[in-house]
Amino acid sequence: MPKGSNKRSPVAIRARIRILHGDDIAIGPGKAELLEFVRKTGSIAEAAKRMGMSYMRAWTLIKTMNACFKEPLVEAVRGGRAHGGATLTETGRQALRLYQQMESDCLKSTTARWKELRSLLRG
Amino acid sequence: MPKGSNKRSPVAIRARIRILHGDDIAIGPGKAELLEFVRKTGSIAEAAKRMGMSYMRAWTLIKTMNACFKEPLVEAVRGGRAHGGATLTETGRQALRLYQQMESDCLKSTTARWKELRSLLRG
Repeated sequence: MPKGSNKRSPVAIRARIRILHGDDIAIGPGKAELLEFVRKTGSIAEAAKRMGMSYMRAWTLIKTMNACFKEPLVEAVRGGRAHGGATLTETGRQALRLYQQMESDCLKSTTARWKELRSLLRG
Repeated sequence: MPKGSNKRSPVAIRARIRILHGDDIAIGPGKAELLEFVRKTGSIAEAAKRMGMSYMRAWTLIKTMNACFKEPLVEAVRGGRAHGGATLTETGRQALRLYQQMESDCLKSTTARWKELRSLLRG
């Protein structure tokens, strides 16, 4: 494949916000993505699958989040589907929304300087 | 030590910006810190030492940065001290300043929502 056939610029900006709680990350990019998949799929097992992680790993991440916040972010849905349905609590929805807004606010705030910095980069 | 003697809140926010250039990071938290130490100390060897990394590692990071930008960010100072003095070029100073401002703009932009999110956290 000729090199020139890839017209995408090689340059991109990535902003990552992490909320630390002692030695734990209360919420960060991975945990927010997991919450988003639980919200969309209503299932921890399905959310784990979409993220390519084990159920146990997803459950551990959720346990950490639940312990960092005053109220749990994810709760089991009684009478739900096999493997246990799950849903975001009101606190979970709020935390996810605030986190996503912070990420987006952060990127927006860098626009002018990112344009300037970008002009110094090759490609 | 009684647990209550640590009065610091366990909660903190961390925002990290990375500028990607193909598969490389053109500048991110580690490379920016390295540039800052080169600026302060005028020496790659001393900057590497302060960051607890080998000279070779620091040099590799600098080579990557220099290759991602149109102009090098760090240049050797001729007639400098042993191990080679080094200094930031005009482009290096600009890139570091813009990166640091973007980090600080990002954090500022999250203030109101961070306060809201923080109120949901324990501790």
